[in-house]
Amino acid sequence: MTLVIIGLGAIGGSFAMSLMKKGYDRIIGVDIDKQTIELALNKGFIHEGTTLPDEVLAEADMILLTLYPGQIASFVQEHRNHFKPGAVLTDVTGVKTAIISNVEQILPDHVDFIFAHPMRGSEKKGIAGADESKFIQANALITPISINKEENIKKVEQLYTDAGFDTVTRVTPEQHDEQIAYVSQLMHVLSVSVVNSTQASDDTLLFAGNSFKELTRIADINESLWGELFLYNKDALLSSIEAFEAELNTFKQALQDEDDVSLKTFLINARNQRRDWY
Amino acid sequence: MTLVIIGLGAIGGSFAMSLMKKGYDRIIGVDIDKQTIELALNKGFIHEGTTLPDEVLAEADMILLTLYPGQIASFVQEHRNHFKPGAVLTDVTGVKTAIISNVEQILPDHVDFIFAHPMRGSEKKGIAGADESKFIQANALITPISINKEENIKKVEQLYTDAGFDTVTRVTPEQHDEQIAYVSQLMHVLSVSVVNSTQASDDTLLFAGNSFKELTRIADINESLWGELFLYNKDALLSSIEAFEAELNTFKQALQDEDDVSLKTFLINARNQRRDWY
Repeated sequence: MTLVIIGLGAIGGSFAMSLMKKGYDRIIGVDIDKQTIELALNKGFIHEGTTLPDEVLAEADMILLTLYPGQIASFVQEHRNHFKPGAVLTDVTGVKTAIISNVEQILPDHVDFIFAHPMRGSEKKGIAGADESKFIQANALITPISINKEENIKKVEQLYTDAGFDTVTRVTPEQHDEQIAYVSQLMHVLSVSVVNSTQASDDTLLFAGNSFKELTRIADINESLWGELFLYNKDALLSSIEAFEAELNTFKQALQDEDDVSLKTFLINARNQRRDWY
Repeated sequence: MTLVIIGLGAIGGSFAMSLMKKGYDRIIGVDIDKQTIELALNKGFIHEGTTLPDEVLAEADMILLTLYPGQIASFVQEHRNHFKPGAVLTDVTGVKTAIISNVEQILPDHVDFIFAHPMRGSEKKGIAGADESKFIQANALITPISINKEENIKKVEQLYTDAGFDTVTRVTPEQHDEQIAYVSQLMHVLSVSVVNSTQASDDTLLFAGNSFKELTRIADINESLWGELFLYNKDALLSSIEAFEAELNTFKQALQDEDDVSLKTFLINARNQRRDWY
């Protein structure tokens, strides 16, 4: 099985390292940066490497695209004549319905595209952020569409299991985007909004404890990637923000009214739900 | 020096353990729960213990009140005739102006009250949450008022240093409450509002990563304590929520308008501020 990984950043590099460790016999890395390819070859993350995808795509049984959301459809479009018949393509982007819609319009009939989302972000950019243990105990989501062949979905599930993922779950693209808007995108929106508050100052850390440090960790954000992710999931994210605002308003009203009972009920409900989860 | 600690919960118990380790020669613990006193005595957290404060207050050079915000003024009122002349009282509550205002009206002239806030919360309630290392590298704030004697402020600063605190900073009560509304109370409000969202479900954890787990940690909240803290700091907290909402609205507007430049600028500003801090 020949696996071609397009993009050797933190995610692509971690897949390469994890699958090399698992014993995959032919992993080819593609990156626009020549030094990244050399480093990956020298460190033994990949068997072969190139900056020119068309040289190797015809040999690929599986193509793992670890590109930004906006690059997926254009990559398929640009290289559509070089894919091997029966090849399985898969992506790692954190939004699904918009990407699927763009790719479906241009995907050649002789390949299959299984859309997936490895849920393990990275604070480090580039191959320096790659780690052979990155996906241990992580979760992945696969969002099958009607044109997907069951055998190809299973191949991608196997790829994730081989890379170390703990669970690989199938969900609809719509469910994926709604839930990710809530559990991931909203967290990032809250964090950056907290940090951008006019209350922020040089004195802030004099007063801050663990909760502030933790909640603002993800405000150290990659604006290009997340700007795209937010825009591609605009409707689901706006709905999620509005659902959050409704709760915030309930709290505010109870506080404004000094309604001790409503305030405590609100806190008790949150505590019980949090304890149910963790 | 005789130190009386009123309340042997996680905070009072940790002070007792830390100061015992430091070599304080007379630490008396007071708690309404007899078993707590027995446990603290058996484990060597305190030298003496009682459920009856009036028995020991007359001997106290310093009285550390680790009570809920609403109990501070009523404790002073109830026991005002038992304090030793020249005694220094101090509290640990997370709000200051409202508590100070209540205590100032009833404080006897022959004692001094130095208001303070050890910034190290606890997820564990009661003496089971006490830890002799709890305050290592933690920060404390002291909010002097005009009637305080400098020598007494210094005594409380020494108490905190002896308990292991890394920094002890003097701020005004108003500055304290405004900043705590932002860095601590707002974080808790956001966390509980996220957890109470109508988007929360049994499936949530299928999609959730580290950021969701971290951001919702503090939703496992003590509703009695935090209900009080929020109400006592109502005005500052409402202002802080409104300042946050202004930023959230800026983000929402940029997303709604698909204004890529404004969106990225918002994220870059947050990233730069977060990196300045940590």
